[in-house]
Amino acid sequence: MDELALVARIRKRSRSRLLGDDCAVLSPKPGEDLLVTTDLFLEGTHFTKDTSASEAGRKCLARGLSDIAAMGGIPRWCFVSLALASKSPTRWLDDFYKGLTTLAKHHKVALAGGDLTRAKTTAADIIVLGAVPKGKALTRSGARRGDAIYVSGLLGRAAASDYKDIPEPRLALGRFLREKLHATACMDLSDGLSLDLHRLCLESKLAASIHRLLPISPGASLLDAVHGGEDYELLFTVAPDTKVPATHQGLHLTQIGTITTGRPGDLTFFGRPLKPAGWDPFRSTRAR
Amino acid sequence: MDELALVARIRKRSRSRLLGDDCAVLSPKPGEDLLVTTDLFLEGTHFTKDTSASEAGRKCLARGLSDIAAMGGIPRWCFVSLALASKSPTRWLDDFYKGLTTLAKHHKVALAGGDLTRAKTTAADIIVLGAVPKGKALTRSGARRGDAIYVSGLLGRAAASDYKDIPEPRLALGRFLREKLHATACMDLSDGLSLDLHRLCLESKLAASIHRLLPISPGASLLDAVHGGEDYELLFTVAPDTKVPATHQGLHLTQIGTITTGRPGDLTFFGRPLKPAGWDPFRSTRAR
Repeated sequence: MDELALVARIRKRSRSRLLGDDCAVLSPKPGEDLLVTTDLFLEGTHFTKDTSASEAGRKCLARGLSDIAAMGGIPRWCFVSLALASKSPTRWLDDFYKGLTTLAKHHKVALAGGDLTRAKTTAADIIVLGAVPKGKALTRSGARRGDAIYVSGLLGRAAASDYKDIPEPRLALGRFLREKLHATACMDLSDGLSLDLHRLCLESKLAASIHRLLPISPGASLLDAVHGGEDYELLFTVAPDTKVPATHQGLHLTQIGTITTGRPGDLTFFGRPLKPAGWDPFRSTRAR
Repeated sequence: MDELALVARIRKRSRSRLLGDDCAVLSPKPGEDLLVTTDLFLEGTHFTKDTSASEAGRKCLARGLSDIAAMGGIPRWCFVSLALASKSPTRWLDDFYKGLTTLAKHHKVALAGGDLTRAKTTAADIIVLGAVPKGKALTRSGARRGDAIYVSGLLGRAAASDYKDIPEPRLALGRFLREKLHATACMDLSDGLSLDLHRLCLESKLAASIHRLLPISPGASLLDAVHGGEDYELLFTVAPDTKVPATHQGLHLTQIGTITTGRPGDLTFFGRPLKPAGWDPFRSTRAR
């Protein structure tokens, strides 16, 4: 099967008429800002040879959708650039796009384009475009001194599953945080609580104290919860007087600490300095 | 150097404040359609270990800009997802982004975000977002029977340079084709004239006859001109009575044939059937 035939199969699956040109043509709505995120998804780093093609497709898109959730956005379009190493590309592609488009349909996201080529190792790049009302995107830089720090769900879940877990993008929660709770800052937990909270504090030019019990996933260790990545829960801050419900659509929301003054990015854990030590591809060698 | 430090270097170079969040936040203009293109750029396929990092960066963006040119668009933002294999990532990254941002500045494109990780083989994905007035994008599907088929520049130039050539995206020409010549269809020549013209005809549900001398690049063979890829010139069609100038800003515009009825996608070359045989990653093994 050649490239034209493979692309024809993808077009059929995506029910998209957009894949035939050099670019996709999209119509953003007036009054909205456009959100754009790109995430690499590499064999040997983000999935393994044991990951089924369908799981890989779902996980690939989930990572991108999680970034849109973190900004309080509504996902609209996705693009997948795929360098394929499979010896049976037709079967693998079919299953990969099946996993991806099932999740896409669930969140009303259109597969609007992409690229397809061959390589020695399978590598994908997922691009998701979304929208928020103009000027309303949640960012990492808006936390203020005294803000309460929250996480959704349970921490260390992915680490405890040896990163086989397929995350659920917290889109409904992200929107709730933007519209109802007016969260001051938000990001998704992709690289581990310690590293991600460090980043949020750096952007907000403040420090953070973790001084409450963490919602640790069954089977996960404290280290998994503090440093384990890929949970794709939301980490957010709200003004101190904000009434945060205990759950949103069944998902637990747990205060874990407070934004403080101090050297930007500094973290303490029950009074002691906490060094950010999550996932860093330029330091770690662990395959995820 | 860790990921945070590497990202800090990129932010400094891009002079972008957009790289700190999970998504970039962009403001498309009302009355414009948004163009989106993604292109993989892989070591061993699109560049080699001999390609300098600076050339790789320039070529990577040039591919994306060429897609915007093909739609008659104005490029606005770019994103680069990069999986880096270099043993000296700081130096390589510096040079790669220097090559890329030099070209970006020339075309007033902002580096708005991306992703960065490590891998065994260097792989990049370039995403370019651009704009056209609503409903005015040039596509592959608008060619009509009797339209004249043109190409810009010289064919086979990349093949003759053993694909070391760094293409110049034809952005000014694309805009001219949309605004002044009202081209009926347009695409860029990335995979070779025969395969790309075949695709244009498929999308337009028509056939094509090449019956004029091709503008062949010095040093290139006829095969290079017909089947060689990566020239990144524009292939376009115009209504038969259109007055096409011989050059646009010094770039030659040459009629090579006519759109005809026939089985969609069929090509003839001076009266004989021409099989599309350009670059197909799922058939060819040639490294480019």
